[in-house]
Amino acid sequence: MSASREFFAALPVAEALAGFRPQRRTGVESVLRDDALGRVPTSAVTSGQPLPGFARSTVDGYAVRAADTYGAGDGLPAYLDVLGRVRMGSMPELSVRPGAALQIPTGAAIPDGADAVVMVEYTQVTMAGAVEVTRPVAIGDGIVRADEDVAAGGALAPAGRPLRPQDLGLLAAAGVTELKVRARPRVAIVSTGDEVVPSDTQRLAAGQVRDATASALSALVTRAGGVPDYRGIVPDDQEALTTTLTEAVAEADLVVVSAGSSVGARDETTAAVEALGDASVFCHGLAIKPGKPTLLAEVAGVPVLGLPGNPLSALVVFRMVGLPVLRLVGGIEVPPPEPTVPATLSRPLASAAGRLDVVQVTLRDGQATPIFGHSALLSLLTTADGYVVVPEPATGLDAGAVVTVTLYA
Amino acid sequence: MSASREFFAALPVAEALAGFRPQRRTGVESVLRDDALGRVPTSAVTSGQPLPGFARSTVDGYAVRAADTYGAGDGLPAYLDVLGRVRMGSMPELSVRPGAALQIPTGAAIPDGADAVVMVEYTQVTMAGAVEVTRPVAIGDGIVRADEDVAAGGALAPAGRPLRPQDLGLLAAAGVTELKVRARPRVAIVSTGDEVVPSDTQRLAAGQVRDATASALSALVTRAGGVPDYRGIVPDDQEALTTTLTEAVAEADLVVVSAGSSVGARDETTAAVEALGDASVFCHGLAIKPGKPTLLAEVAGVPVLGLPGNPLSALVVFRMVGLPVLRLVGGIEVPPPEPTVPATLSRPLASAAGRLDVVQVTLRDGQATPIFGHSALLSLLTTADGYVVVPEPATGLDAGAVVTVTLYA
Repeated sequence: MSASREFFAALPVAEALAGFRPQRRTGVESVLRDDALGRVPTSAVTSGQPLPGFARSTVDGYAVRAADTYGAGDGLPAYLDVLGRVRMGSMPELSVRPGAALQIPTGAAIPDGADAVVMVEYTQVTMAGAVEVTRPVAIGDGIVRADEDVAAGGALAPAGRPLRPQDLGLLAAAGVTELKVRARPRVAIVSTGDEVVPSDTQRLAAGQVRDATASALSALVTRAGGVPDYRGIVPDDQEALTTTLTEAVAEADLVVVSAGSSVGARDETTAAVEALGDASVFCHGLAIKPGKPTLLAEVAGVPVLGLPGNPLSALVVFRMVGLPVLRLVGGIEVPPPEPTVPATLSRPLASAAGRLDVVQVTLRDGQATPIFGHSALLSLLTTADGYVVVPEPATGLDAGAVVTVTLYA
Repeated sequence: MSASREFFAALPVAEALAGFRPQRRTGVESVLRDDALGRVPTSAVTSGQPLPGFARSTVDGYAVRAADTYGAGDGLPAYLDVLGRVRMGSMPELSVRPGAALQIPTGAAIPDGADAVVMVEYTQVTMAGAVEVTRPVAIGDGIVRADEDVAAGGALAPAGRPLRPQDLGLLAAAGVTELKVRARPRVAIVSTGDEVVPSDTQRLAAGQVRDATASALSALVTRAGGVPDYRGIVPDDQEALTTTLTEAVAEADLVVVSAGSSVGARDETTAAVEALGDASVFCHGLAIKPGKPTLLAEVAGVPVLGLPGNPLSALVVFRMVGLPVLRLVGGIEVPPPEPTVPATLSRPLASAAGRLDVVQVTLRDGQATPIFGHSALLSLLTTADGYVVVPEPATGLDAGAVVTVTLYA
């Protein structure tokens, strides 16, 4: 990370994401399995035992020796003695000898001596104590092996991928009750701006706006697996901001500052960051619209993200740049998939070459309609069903172009 | 809902979803806005006031009367007296008279008398107290109107759609600190089966399996906005199941029973449900693979879902049928989008006409590869990146067919 970076007017977003790699990682902690949804294992979780642990029947029928059924058919059934019935949940006490069978329900343990299960549909009971088998089975038919689900030592869940519902299921099947995961990243959220007042302010004076960005950012952080830590509103005053940032950097894994909207306020954020010890500014300008006045810096290894002043721009940049940094810090190597849908553009979109444009759209009947309006309007983002990205090289997209809409969830 | 339904061998899934509409809805409660992510407003939330509430500058520059700039150009700048500077966060004390301007930062309130803002880029200060404007502005340029983001009484968030991060932002901007939402649906999860033991059992006897389904179901419920309420493992005994179901129906908004895997156990679930008062069975067989032995019933208005015995089938059915019922009960009218991606099938898939097939797949380089294996194997679901649905009318899909993969998040 070179100091000269900061003089770049606007860095491409992909370059910023590839190059901005702060060292900070959250610690490791133990969590109970049933609290581990979305948590990130620090190493692959493996099974101490094979699963299911015993050979199981996959059908309702009769446990047999396959050889006893060879050649069986409707015209020439195989006759087997039925020795009894396997009970669910316990090891069969009886074993299957040549010429014999045990009735067995789906999921029960295969008795000694049996090597296949005949489905009940291919059997007929014509007299007590015996069964006719009308179709041959091969060895292994109707059975899952004792280690077919997971081998002893086999992987239950990989490192670096947030745990999904089915992962918790498999961990439960293997008897894992607790596991090591990355701590949730603590994200300090600092709002600045002399015009910004707390969101619970009931009556605004003219010129004042409530802090909308912090609420939305907190929700994005929560949803991405982090813990938002709102640090309140700091006036446009470099000293106050330096004090707040010093505390935030000491306690958080990622610091996000939504700057005041004026040029002066933005400069103050940069100056306040630079005034901290062990600070290096990676860039203060991204080739993205909206969101150009974005600051990326690292203070003592902790990433500091300076967002544009208006809420729409701040939220766009946090999605595009902040969430990847949050995942990096929290050890997520396999990001959860995002909902996307292909659509055709209802009208042309202009874009400057070399700039990533993030365009809010509504979606209807497969058609994406850009929502135009100033980025000072947060309602653009609440009206939108999702957004379209016009990539850096493009100078625009034609009406009718097929685009990928990333949907808001 | 007719009693004859229960004699249908296997009901198409779409028909089940359209026809199974239990009356149960969760109650209404107040939540703090910052706890409302994903919660479902019971009616549209509207703004008591216009937003931003005052006309704001969208640029750094000079608040002017547009008429004073008409005809201005590089060769013939308009000369305006600069009366002072508008401060962020308060109403300007000065007003703009003809021939004058006020310096103004982005986001500040437009002073009386001004009807446009000239960007600083099109101005030049050549002597103290005056500014040269080199480009004309029209009325409204550089300004967002006082009600341009949201009009007084305008919608902040619709009813029935789970609140997204940006919705919380707009609610914060409007000063909404608390709102009415549907209570989270309480989902009773009942496991049955003589072979099933608690998931914290360290040593299994042969024939026993740990309860994997309940952990995964709980996670799915949590993620869908519900509150899982695990009722433990009930032995394959109709009376015990009836007792548990009676309590569950009295306390929950949705009851989910993962049946034992054997035919007998499945019949017992149906019998236990039918033995309850005010019970009606909607169907006990769905045209879906895996998952055919699914029971849909309503007991005193509360939906009861009987899932197949093996965890993979149970989880597939809960996604396809249980989640829509959960959303219905919880008042979600606009389901959150799911991550999907188009892919080409690496090999052909067979399917019976009239049956919905849910096929687990891995995804690589745009190619979806079906994972074959018995549905008794939960590891199919943890290995999968997502699933492909082969619709009812299809008898299969060819290799190379373009399919939609729904991705696991």
